[in-house]
Amino acid sequence: MAQKPTIPKGTRDFSQAETARRNHIFDTCREVFRLYGYAPIETPAMENLSTLMGKYGEEGDKLLFRVMNSGEQAANPPEKGLRYDLTVPFARYVVQHQSEIAFPFKRFQIQPVWRADRPQKGRYREFFQCDVDVIGSKSLVNELELIQIVEQVFGRLGVAVTLKLNNRKILAGIAETIGHPQRLVDITVAIDKLDKIGIEAVKAELAEKGISEEAIGKLEPILALEGNRREKLDLLAEILAGSEVGMVGIGEMRQVLDYVEALGVKLDVELDLSLARGLNYYTGTIFEVKAKDWEIGSICGGGRYDDLTGIFGMPGVSGVGISFGADRIYDVMDGLGLFTAEVVAGTKVLLLNFGGDPRSLVTEELTALRLASELRAAGVAAEVYPDASKMKKQMEWANKREIPWVVIIGEEELVSGKATLKNMKSGEQQQVEFGRLVEILK
Amino acid sequence: MAQKPTIPKGTRDFSQAETARRNHIFDTCREVFRLYGYAPIETPAMENLSTLMGKYGEEGDKLLFRVMNSGEQAANPPEKGLRYDLTVPFARYVVQHQSEIAFPFKRFQIQPVWRADRPQKGRYREFFQCDVDVIGSKSLVNELELIQIVEQVFGRLGVAVTLKLNNRKILAGIAETIGHPQRLVDITVAIDKLDKIGIEAVKAELAEKGISEEAIGKLEPILALEGNRREKLDLLAEILAGSEVGMVGIGEMRQVLDYVEALGVKLDVELDLSLARGLNYYTGTIFEVKAKDWEIGSICGGGRYDDLTGIFGMPGVSGVGISFGADRIYDVMDGLGLFTAEVVAGTKVLLLNFGGDPRSLVTEELTALRLASELRAAGVAAEVYPDASKMKKQMEWANKREIPWVVIIGEEELVSGKATLKNMKSGEQQQVEFGRLVEILK
Repeated sequence: MAQKPTIPKGTRDFSQAETARRNHIFDTCREVFRLYGYAPIETPAMENLSTLMGKYGEEGDKLLFRVMNSGEQAANPPEKGLRYDLTVPFARYVVQHQSEIAFPFKRFQIQPVWRADRPQKGRYREFFQCDVDVIGSKSLVNELELIQIVEQVFGRLGVAVTLKLNNRKILAGIAETIGHPQRLVDITVAIDKLDKIGIEAVKAELAEKGISEEAIGKLEPILALEGNRREKLDLLAEILAGSEVGMVGIGEMRQVLDYVEALGVKLDVELDLSLARGLNYYTGTIFEVKAKDWEIGSICGGGRYDDLTGIFGMPGVSGVGISFGADRIYDVMDGLGLFTAEVVAGTKVLLLNFGGDPRSLVTEELTALRLASELRAAGVAAEVYPDASKMKKQMEWANKREIPWVVIIGEEELVSGKATLKNMKSGEQQQVEFGRLVEILK
Repeated sequence: MAQKPTIPKGTRDFSQAETARRNHIFDTCREVFRLYGYAPIETPAMENLSTLMGKYGEEGDKLLFRVMNSGEQAANPPEKGLRYDLTVPFARYVVQHQSEIAFPFKRFQIQPVWRADRPQKGRYREFFQCDVDVIGSKSLVNELELIQIVEQVFGRLGVAVTLKLNNRKILAGIAETIGHPQRLVDITVAIDKLDKIGIEAVKAELAEKGISEEAIGKLEPILALEGNRREKLDLLAEILAGSEVGMVGIGEMRQVLDYVEALGVKLDVELDLSLARGLNYYTGTIFEVKAKDWEIGSICGGGRYDDLTGIFGMPGVSGVGISFGADRIYDVMDGLGLFTAEVVAGTKVLLLNFGGDPRSLVTEELTALRLASELRAAGVAAEVYPDASKMKKQMEWANKREIPWVVIIGEEELVSGKATLKNMKSGEQQQVEFGRLVEILK
């Protein structure tokens, strides 16, 4: 085999540095989720096709990776597919395990998903989702806590963000108020594009879809509402006064903002009436997070749903959740240089290997191995170069791997009982008694 | 849909408690691997079938899960399969990325693998592997460090284990010495079963395979060698004196034991000449770990290989690695009751919710939410019950989820500025000033 092996289109290998940076994002999410009482579950990569089919629209069905049956069943149509997101498996899990679950059920899930999308820049066929949901509670305290979680996660990651808020009931109220209560989906799909294509193009699209000129005329000033979130909301309350569902939405939004203000959330929380999110299962609050200092789509989003588990025969359970887009967060942090050296830091010290007869009790190598054991016992990641190679080669290896400290124990050091400790960044060297290495490197 | 949804045969959902216990095993492995300078990589779930086929024998090819092509390509034979282990993807990774890698390359990898095996007790179609390998170094220091890693991982997990050691070259030396140098595989396959079926059955199997009676007669006393590891090794050195490869194996084993003794490894390390491990790519040291207090197969194993990457066109690179069997380790720990309550511990304190008008600044609910934020800022996992439900319901929820502390802030507490703090295990209650909660619960 002369040709180098490859991996399937749209999939990725992650090097040690990339894995460390990705884990930094996942670990930060995990820590924050835990502080708020969310705990992880895991579901299998393969789900029955009957679980997945019809849940993501016609287009989604086409993008499912189907897994062939094994053995004699191989000729039959496939029965299994790779999970497409974490939401449907979560709904399936809740229904399947409902008798073991204490509701409200607060779970997070960080696992890969697979989509047979056409691969392109920033779009992969395998990527991780990082979902946090609570199901079985209608309380808006949950919305508040998810907002606090967003604040904490991005605060810890050092990414400046804006959280955009809207409410599906407000969108329904708008549709009602402009005289097209049945056209909520078409209207939200169009206004969702406001940011990208501008108001004139949105109006054209609405007209094309048969929304009356009069209705469009009523919609335009709503989308153009100015002021801070409270001012916008007050103006909107006047406009939607005649819509029952709209006023419920206004009430929910006010309460969420009350919580946000009472708890001193410092996150930039905006009301964005053009925020719709394509997913039709949202029924209340909708969230979306954008990075302030880097041009990219939303890096986190979610909302409240009232009937996620209905598709599996368990209707009327309300929940709310958000999903962190790890790949995009990675790109933002990478682009802004927010991954510190500490994130990738692995081994702290390399002890060079100058060999010796292993049956002797005091060779250079054995001394290095013993000191490495002591360092590890104190929690310091330490390595001994495995071979007694030339010093230059060992130093190069330390440099390539960006190990910050090197310990040299040659013949002289063995006699004096003092190691040479070299700072690889400054190049400075000092003589340190073997017994003091732990204390210095810890 | 009246029927409860299910998941594919041989796959599993992991509940929050199960996930916590599994993560305890993985996190322990990760921490120890890192202390020894190993860092993680990740590879995609799907590999090209050309990468996987022919690497696991005919039987293995049949057990590969094949993934159908998407879209118009669906009618063509599948080109992708789910990864079957982490070893072949690792070899593929090393060859593909050889120019970016600093050898010796120390990596670990903890990811799921998939096999279309017939599901049965303890055998799943999706399970995690936890591999740690160093490639690009022939030094036996690596063997020592893997033994230290085994000692550390199981020490931290609290599992008493025996590490069994053998060397493929010693097995080759035995085959040579008994006059069947070409029959190494048949001989090792048979003696690998010694533990399970006993010496008479092994002898019968060898005879059936055409191994001469004389050879079997020579083999028997070798397998029956008694004494400690050093005594066995000395006796074996006499027997294998005429075999060059055998004596190289003896030399390697002696050096590994020299290291183990010089470094004060406390792990129970045994020489086991019947240890062969089925995998033909091992060429030197072979490891296997058994739990002392629980009947189950090996819970960790591995060895040295001299040509793992040869299959992908990069010959002659020696490496050594071990794999921790997370599912079996889980079963051992579960069986022996080694998972402490701390491992599963999630939320430390639940603040009950007695509602109030959210626009007021001093309601019971808002006070609970504020105190929860303070607790979290101090690193304490804290929750507020999201709804102002009946106290009984909230207490039951805390109990079901085994939350150890509950904070009650009702009308009285709000007036006095002192919360009622209840220890859910002992039932004891005390009055604590709001400002002192953090200090007590931290």
